[in-house]
Amino acid sequence: MNTRQEVLDFVHNGHQHYLPHLSIDCVIFGYHAHQLKILLIRHHGHEKWSLPGGYIARNETLTQSAHRILAEKTQLSNLFLQQFYVFGDSATRMNRIETHDTHNTTYAKVGVALGENHWLSERTLSIGYYALVDYLNVVVTPDLLVDAYCWQEVTDVPALDFDHNEIVQKALMTLRAQLYQQPIGYNLLAEKFTLPEIHALYEAILGRQFDRRNFRKKLLTLGLIRQLEERRKIGPHRSPYLYEFDPENYQKALEEGAVLAQ
Amino acid sequence: MNTRQEVLDFVHNGHQHYLPHLSIDCVIFGYHAHQLKILLIRHHGHEKWSLPGGYIARNETLTQSAHRILAEKTQLSNLFLQQFYVFGDSATRMNRIETHDTHNTTYAKVGVALGENHWLSERTLSIGYYALVDYLNVVVTPDLLVDAYCWQEVTDVPALDFDHNEIVQKALMTLRAQLYQQPIGYNLLAEKFTLPEIHALYEAILGRQFDRRNFRKKLLTLGLIRQLEERRKIGPHRSPYLYEFDPENYQKALEEGAVLAQ
Repeated sequence: MNTRQEVLDFVHNGHQHYLPHLSIDCVIFGYHAHQLKILLIRHHGHEKWSLPGGYIARNETLTQSAHRILAEKTQLSNLFLQQFYVFGDSATRMNRIETHDTHNTTYAKVGVALGENHWLSERTLSIGYYALVDYLNVVVTPDLLVDAYCWQEVTDVPALDFDHNEIVQKALMTLRAQLYQQPIGYNLLAEKFTLPEIHALYEAILGRQFDRRNFRKKLLTLGLIRQLEERRKIGPHRSPYLYEFDPENYQKALEEGAVLAQ
Repeated sequence: MNTRQEVLDFVHNGHQHYLPHLSIDCVIFGYHAHQLKILLIRHHGHEKWSLPGGYIARNETLTQSAHRILAEKTQLSNLFLQQFYVFGDSATRMNRIETHDTHNTTYAKVGVALGENHWLSERTLSIGYYALVDYLNVVVTPDLLVDAYCWQEVTDVPALDFDHNEIVQKALMTLRAQLYQQPIGYNLLAEKFTLPEIHALYEAILGRQFDRRNFRKKLLTLGLIRQLEERRKIGPHRSPYLYEFDPENYQKALEEGAVLAQ
């Protein structure tokens, strides 16, 4: 939101456009050159950083809302975006006074104080989505209520607003658990990639090193990738084979449970 | 709800006790003697069956709500209960007139017609939870608004209300995908069990047969179960080893991503 009028309209009439009690928070993993980071945002007047998020419009499906919010924050569309959990348990999320005060800090920027029963001060459950992007492709633009964005190493996330640290942890665990069950890397690697490239991505996500030969065997056995005839020429004596994802085959295997009984 | 007064109180004052726009639907898998079934419910006046569900109380955490709803429907507590997805996309869920009419059919039983802007007629997203139980332990009791319960084979689920078939499919796929990532069977098998017992459970969930020896090796390698010294005497020449779950070891391996890189 770029103008005071837009913000005032959201504060005063937002409940007519959006569902109350529900928000979407996005854990946007950014990968580049062996490093895994997440996108954080700092709202006006806040000391702590938080996750980018938004609300579900009454006339949008849930998936449409998630894609719109992600596009608003990153200018990227058609991403692999995965819903992973609903957060409705933490004390900070049950505490309406904390929610109320946090929002009031932000909206003080436009000279508005929310009433105690204001729709933005209500108890809100948040649906977590994660995405994987190449962070060099992301364009972020601070606006009237957002002072700053940053890319933070996943191994060094500071104390965030509300239960957002818990959301980040759950996203990372889900991403790791789904490494061999989803076409992770689909938005990150080129259409054709080398084994060292996908190996480096998986090492960054798991946060540790592991044997490359077993890894290749596992991905091929699962049917997640397939080896091409083509090689990439990267030096006089180096021309590694290229691979590509095989999401259809993988989906089929997953539905039949074949992947899991290997 | 057993009395007309309870139902009227829920219809007229429910929005003060529960969050609007959100419900919980439970896919309760019942396993016994190699068969996998799900619990279905038929509300008053409905031709179609649906999943048992309920609403999130304003003073309960999300997890508390899910456990309360499950206990209300099955009289069971302390179950392994797993949140798996939020449903907010299907056309039937976006269509408020359909929601409205479906509820009105039920509440006609107590002579109430809901207004178009009634809280129960609003667009509602549903959070799916699944549980695994031994269906011989479940006690279901029809009440004023519930005409009947039944256990239906997962391979033979009829057309359900709203998007409930989609919820069942997603639950089954998640259960299969998590077979080697969660202590599935924790509520189902005895504390100490034989390999044929856990093998039969996994075959029922995956809906197909697979080799028992590789299966044993896989569970032991993952650290999901451990073999005990003890055997069970089931005949003069049959005394198979007993096994038990090792959830702590498993959780640790999962957090480190070790399980996934095997």
